[in-house]
Amino acid sequence: MRLSLNQRTTRRWSVAEAVDGCVRHGLEAVGLWREEVAEQGLAESVKLVREAGLRVSSLCRGGFLTAGGLPGDAGRRAFARALEDNRRAIDEAAELSAACLVMVVGGLPGVRPGEPLPAASAREPAAGGFSRDLAGARERVAEALAELAPYAGERGVKLALEPLHPIYCPDRAVLSTLGQALDLSLPYPEEQVGVVVDTFHVWWDPRLFEDIARAGRRIASYQVCDYLHPLPADVLLGRGMMGDGVIDFRPITRAVQAAGYTGDIEVEIFNAEIWAADPDEVVATVKARYEDVVLATG
Amino acid sequence: MRLSLNQRTTRRWSVAEAVDGCVRHGLEAVGLWREEVAEQGLAESVKLVREAGLRVSSLCRGGFLTAGGLPGDAGRRAFARALEDNRRAIDEAAELSAACLVMVVGGLPGVRPGEPLPAASAREPAAGGFSRDLAGARERVAEALAELAPYAGERGVKLALEPLHPIYCPDRAVLSTLGQALDLSLPYPEEQVGVVVDTFHVWWDPRLFEDIARAGRRIASYQVCDYLHPLPADVLLGRGMMGDGVIDFRPITRAVQAAGYTGDIEVEIFNAEIWAADPDEVVATVKARYEDVVLATG
Repeated sequence: MRLSLNQRTTRRWSVAEAVDGCVRHGLEAVGLWREEVAEQGLAESVKLVREAGLRVSSLCRGGFLTAGGLPGDAGRRAFARALEDNRRAIDEAAELSAACLVMVVGGLPGVRPGEPLPAASAREPAAGGFSRDLAGARERVAEALAELAPYAGERGVKLALEPLHPIYCPDRAVLSTLGQALDLSLPYPEEQVGVVVDTFHVWWDPRLFEDIARAGRRIASYQVCDYLHPLPADVLLGRGMMGDGVIDFRPITRAVQAAGYTGDIEVEIFNAEIWAADPDEVVATVKARYEDVVLATG
Repeated sequence: MRLSLNQRTTRRWSVAEAVDGCVRHGLEAVGLWREEVAEQGLAESVKLVREAGLRVSSLCRGGFLTAGGLPGDAGRRAFARALEDNRRAIDEAAELSAACLVMVVGGLPGVRPGEPLPAASAREPAAGGFSRDLAGARERVAEALAELAPYAGERGVKLALEPLHPIYCPDRAVLSTLGQALDLSLPYPEEQVGVVVDTFHVWWDPRLFEDIARAGRRIASYQVCDYLHPLPADVLLGRGMMGDGVIDFRPITRAVQAAGYTGDIEVEIFNAEIWAADPDEVVATVKARYEDVVLATG
């Protein structure tokens, strides 16, 4: 059984409750989030997962590295702050012995996740606006990675670059395809920098199977959830229970396994209805759907 | 002046009104839609654009070729109907001397544009459900193209394959990147099959500039509008006036020109506010923004 519960799937659960829930449902791995770990306390979180004998399949998340694309001092300060925060995230991932630190690299400089664009009158970065320089933002990510990869390597932490669906390009991740994330990882040892294959983000990609094969053991995390259609008004919550959307999981699971991935399969669902449901029922459904539509057997 | 007005930007206008509007504002080209052409009458539409001396930069749209992915007789009938409808579209494009027929190829078989997925209990295609076979749907597009390209070629019509933003992959187009559209076009003469570069759909693509260069004279249409953020609840209407969203147009325009494209630049905006505004004011704004943010000069 390689199923892992990402704790944001059962959002009401604290780290302690998620750990208990995994044990109760017979899961051997859990994906944690920094915010919840901080609420529980890092040392306490480490103790909880160790005593429960769980693997930490991922820590979410580092990243948001693109603010350095703002001009002048503001950009330099934002870049330094982002690096410092990511070093802390790496330290936390090391403490938790997480299989990887998931990196959501950030969107266009000055565009805040989930928020409207700055007003038309203030679109110049210098005036508190944002930058449309997508190519530049992507270069900032590469520069930040050059700073962070050795730091992660020294602490035995693998950075897992997560390409996000292009709908999140403006505000969350200028990494938009698996191939792009993979290319960014190649200058580094595979134990330092890998990639995330998250079905929601990559299911549509015509190069998906070719890039999964090319990624090979660079695949640091395999996350599953379905892609709902139509998406809800808040597109962040368009992630569905496997089987409720448009994704054909088995061929993707098969390709990830064929590429050499032997880690956990983590279920990460952001969804208002699922968050409102009884977490124990959610985990039971996750287990059933995992068997029915995700596993590549049969 | 190579600016063309796609008539759906001024949605209230009939073909006659759009033609008058173009003349009144000094535009030399117009992009037409089959539905509006049918309302005006094909022969009358041909007469109107000829007498006004306008170029028809595109006819929208052919496509929706993937329903053949439904199983059995239903699939065969749907495929035959789609081919027949596309042959009529090609005939209309020939009558109008349109520079190309824009092809929106269709989504997953059984998923209707803008509509929710069939209920969970009826997800098998045979029961009026839908298919999750994305790779198969893409093969259906290639098969349909093999039928339609020669027919188009005999009538002097260029089919323009339009990759749509991945958000439309479930219901509107399984063509998701310019590279994918380009690869599909390569078996055919470039006067028979080309590709559309629509900024809204491709701005995020990390391979965009490489694929524009590779497309070269395969680029059959260059369409511009901005990508709004956040998208509205109806994502079809997330197209904005150039300058109102996140796209940096000039590098894209420059690349399209460097690739050898010498056709019209068509402005196609689906947007509830713009549709509610005075069409003459909309055209005036289009002209101003075209100069300010789209043209690659300066």
